Amino acid sequence: MTQRPFITLTTDFGASDHYVGTMKGVLYGINPSALVVDISHAVASYDLLDGALTIAQAYSYFPVDTIHVVVVDPGVGSERRPLLARTEKYSFVAPDNGVLSLVFEREERVSVRHISSEHYFLHPVSRTFHGRDVFAAVAGWLSKGVELARFGEEIRDYTRFRMPQPKRLEDGRVQGVVLKVDKFGNVVTNITPQDIPQLFATGSPQFRILAGKQEITSMRTAYVEGTAGEVFGILGSMGFLELATNRGSAARALEVGKGAEVVVSGKW
Amino acid sequence: MTQRPFITLTTDFGASDHYVGTMKGVLYGINPSALVVDISHAVASYDLLDGALTIAQAYSYFPVDTIHVVVVDPGVGSERRPLLARTEKYSFVAPDNGVLSLVFEREERVSVRHISSEHYFLHPVSRTFHGRDVFAAVAGWLSKGVELARFGEEIRDYTRFRMPQPKRLEDGRVQGVVLKVDKFGNVVTNITPQDIPQLFATGSPQFRILAGKQEITSMRTAYVEGTAGEVFGILGSMGFLELATNRGSAARALEVGKGAEVVVSGKW
Amino acid sequence: MTQRPFITLTTDFGASDHYVGTMKGVLYGINPSALVVDISHAVASYDLLDGALTIAQAYSYFPVDTIHVVVVDPGVGSERRPLLARTEKYSFVAPDNGVLSLVFEREERVSVRHISSEHYFLHPVSRTFHGRDVFAAVAGWLSKGVELARFGEEIRDYTRFRMPQPKRLEDGRVQGVVLKVDKFGNVVTNITPQDIPQLFATGSPQFRILAGKQEITSMRTAYVEGTAGEVFGILGSMGFLELATNRGSAARALEVGKGAEVVVSGKW
Repeated sequence: MTQRPFITLTTDFGASDHYVGTMKGVLYGINPSALVVDISHAVASYDLLDGALTIAQAYSYFPVDTIHVVVVDPGVGSERRPLLARTEKYSFVAPDNGVLSLVFEREERVSVRHISSEHYFLHPVSRTFHGRDVFAAVAGWLSKGVELARFGEEIRDYTRFRMPQPKRLEDGRVQGVVLKVDKFGNVVTNITPQDIPQLFATGSPQFRILAGKQEITSMRTAYVEGTAGEVFGILGSMGFLELATNRGSAARALEVGKGAEVVVSGKW
Repeated sequence: MTQRPFITLTTDFGASDHYVGTMKGVLYGINPSALVVDISHAVASYDLLDGALTIAQAYSYFPVDTIHVVVVDPGVGSERRPLLARTEKYSFVAPDNGVLSLVFEREERVSVRHISSEHYFLHPVSRTFHGRDVFAAVAGWLSKGVELARFGEEIRDYTRFRMPQPKRLEDGRVQGVVLKVDKFGNVVTNITPQDIPQLFATGSPQFRILAGKQEITSMRTAYVEGTAGEVFGILGSMGFLELATNRGSAARALEVGKGAEVVVSGKW
Repeated sequence: MTQRPFITLTTDFGASDHYVGTMKGVLYGINPSALVVDISHAVASYDLLDGALTIAQAYSYFPVDTIHVVVVDPGVGSERRPLLARTEKYSFVAPDNGVLSLVFEREERVSVRHISSEHYFLHPVSRTFHGRDVFAAVAGWLSKGVELARFGEEIRDYTRFRMPQPKRLEDGRVQGVVLKVDKFGNVVTNITPQDIPQLFATGSPQFRILAGKQEITSMRTAYVEGTAGEVFGILGSMGFLELATNRGSAARALEVGKGAEVVVSGKW
């Protein structure tokens, strides 16, 4: 444990209610020495992939021993288990529904426990707000130094899903999908430089990216390089191919949203 | 006072402006040892009941001696008084307009002061932003250990309102009202298990809940128990009857919003 | 340096993505003793004037030696320089695009450096997210006490723009512009008491303010003084003439938005 335990929050609770503030109350109520940091509360409602992407983009920058609480929890109140995962550097508290899948994918050594020690919960435990009664409470106690093993037994059958992978079609084209549209309207696909190295190389051969209403034929290395109104491809900060436009919304220009198909063809 | 004074913020200032950030500047400027925690800034504009519900759902989870600043203040700049309330465990700084009504309702022992010691304010005091010049400034000084009595005299004629209560109609039906719709579209009513114990009991007798465009005839104990498209009743985490649907917006399905009527009838 | 270094964030990143959370990860990862405080992440996308106004309204309230990180950065990835500015009391980390113009305008003594010491950056440096790889990283190291001079050479040719100033027309009328509309619908103009002292004086002579669809003929000193539906002028907390209405949106009533013309005429 560091001197000052860090606890992050990633949820689909939004900003319009007391939910996040109440979780912070529980966390500080249990451990007033902690520091609670918001990663995002704007995960799309019930969207496990969006939650998985969000925590995956942020967790590794935090100090060693940070506790990451991830609550995207459509199964709250049912039999789905609460999990406590430990990687080499971080702890994660989340429902057992796959929202930690990308963490599991990236980390070589992970131990996962089923949190069953209910005396660490807030009682009475509601059936609709485990963010408060289970996940925040457990994270609070964990940050106080309670040993992992005290929260429950290690398990191996936890839920994990694979992120949608681009497919290589028979004719050589690569078919990907839009993972998300960010605040600026940048369209984040699931295509990486590993999938099509030539696309991201300088002086790349001719290619076409089909997405929504347009055919995209240029790659740029900075947003500002885009000419007026042009939608172009760019290697985004998440490590994926993004479709973007200079000072505007590519999603609006292309009329695409999450889940839309993106097909890349080229002479390589 | 705890070693590290906690100050929470609950306002209707939204996230789109500098208002909240400026209040934090004032708070830390006065007391750099404090920790400022957001409860919510999305209270509906000028809506005292919504503000009262928000702080009521969160305040009691925070560490003892937390100072809760609540600014929903349509009367800013007028003669309405700034208040400093102290309960057994917490302090509250807010305008005298009833926004603390639910705190007053729940707490047995409350002392309320009219903050009149203007030397604790930021000068010149604006007529439009007491969140900065009055409430944050006072909370900052309070968190430094200034005694309650130094801020002003105790008063008894402070404003308080009663939360809208469900009515029992002559034919035995119970008529409630929608208090709020949350981010997920869950419809929070003002009906509690105290009002209709049978409704929340397992194996409850036949009942009907009329709300907006639908008649609701089932109670569930977890969102995930709802069948596709079904709107059902559930005991929510705020302690009220909520109308909900599994992975969807009950408010949209019912076409109801805040203030809508909800009538429960049953054989009990 | 204070014992507990404060770092504030002002960006146009919004709340819908991981961007802000990731910046906090970088900041705490480098300096776990810092305290990161949000000013606003709702600066209008790419809008340097809006960013300049936002930081200008908040920075001076924070503790001495606070580091203000301001990222509104349409030129990210291009040749635009990252800046480190130091005023008498505060440090600022921002792109060299004028977003600090109002700080430069208000502060008499400013030294500005071009941040060129890339070993303080996060590597590999992305071309699209310098908030993470450059600005947060530099602010983190700065908060650890790295000397200003180590980040790069002092420069004088940094970008600054002048805020749009009201014009005095030949017939004596004053023509201003709407700087922003706040969350409540208050219309913030660029007209100050220095421009038209008589307008803000008690017992001001007859005047007319033309804005959008209405002619405004009254000044108030508190929102609550407005009669039902009346749009009036008021000296706002930002120091500018605001057009407002009691418990409602003046912007909607007037049908004006950012950039709209506001003309004041009067007998003075």
